[in-house]
Amino acid sequence: MAPKSPQKARILRAAAELFAEHGYHGTGMAQLEAAVGLQRGALYHHIGNKEALLFEISASQLRVMVEIALDIEKRVEDPEERFRELARTLMENIADHVLEWTVHYRDFTALTGPLMESVLDLRKQYEQVWQRTLNAGIDVGDFKPLPESVALKGILGMFNYSYVWLKKDAGLPPREIADVFCDTFLTGILRSAPPTG
Amino acid sequence: MAPKSPQKARILRAAAELFAEHGYHGTGMAQLEAAVGLQRGALYHHIGNKEALLFEISASQLRVMVEIALDIEKRVEDPEERFRELARTLMENIADHVLEWTVHYRDFTALTGPLMESVLDLRKQYEQVWQRTLNAGIDVGDFKPLPESVALKGILGMFNYSYVWLKKDAGLPPREIADVFCDTFLTGILRSAPPTG
Repeated sequence: MAPKSPQKARILRAAAELFAEHGYHGTGMAQLEAAVGLQRGALYHHIGNKEALLFEISASQLRVMVEIALDIEKRVEDPEERFRELARTLMENIADHVLEWTVHYRDFTALTGPLMESVLDLRKQYEQVWQRTLNAGIDVGDFKPLPESVALKGILGMFNYSYVWLKKDAGLPPREIADVFCDTFLTGILRSAPPTG
Repeated sequence: MAPKSPQKARILRAAAELFAEHGYHGTGMAQLEAAVGLQRGALYHHIGNKEALLFEISASQLRVMVEIALDIEKRVEDPEERFRELARTLMENIADHVLEWTVHYRDFTALTGPLMESVLDLRKQYEQVWQRTLNAGIDVGDFKPLPESVALKGILGMFNYSYVWLKKDAGLPPREIADVFCDTFLTGILRSAPPTG
């Protein structure tokens, strides 16, 4: 990936705002031209076309999260601690990039062909780090075995869905919200848990 | 609410399919006219306008879930069992109405004025049943106290986010997925949980 020019970063930011407010399909290129003060030719020079913009916005933070997750996997051996660090970094990233995640979850399904495949591949890479972490915890006997994809979908749902409410809830810093979710997912809320096994 | 005519039900179904695929803003009335084989005048006679359609689709299952939740609250006294029954009925409803929930989560923010207020009020009513259930469990000493809104957002996120993946994952029936999520949320996945307290 070539580093982003300030102009391109500005276009991506304006597009993320428009897509998050009006939806990808509901945003016209004329609106984007007006928002960034560029004519269509200059705009296309910087970003290609509208779908390329959606791809950049939908994929950029996912790409960052894959790198972060693979790094955590290398650095943190203990499955519980790795799980917690994956959670904290995800919640921080969603809090810092609510617009991009809103566009991602609302509209990445509008992508087609290789762009869609690329986003699905990034999602898979990211989810696989979590899955390997859950499996590692089960292998060493720290975690209870759970129906595989369901457990992963549950924990990722706790986090992913936060793009809907995180901006409005300034009660706790993102890392602490992640810790609460992890505590709940890891130890549950029942005072008298049934025997583990 | 007047009972729906078969014609209106057919229009709502077609609109839900179009909105779920193209987004609310990305769906034109001409597409809807073509999909249901009606001219604009006849369409408006049945549904009012496009925002009224979005409201019907976004609010209908939420309204159903508020009724179901209030009924469970009356019928089921034990907080854990009430929690589980709320979870099962939510997951079943999302599985049965993935299209409507997709439209709801992607686009209910496009609603304005009293229609938006009405959906926000229904969401609040529904969430309050869950919150009262969590509080009841804490009051009787069954559940650990958790930062209030965060716990609720976590558990609802596990379920709500399933509109994204539920259609693709036919591995377990919805009620059983709900049970797995509840077991995880209630008892956690750590084999050796730290002392409760």
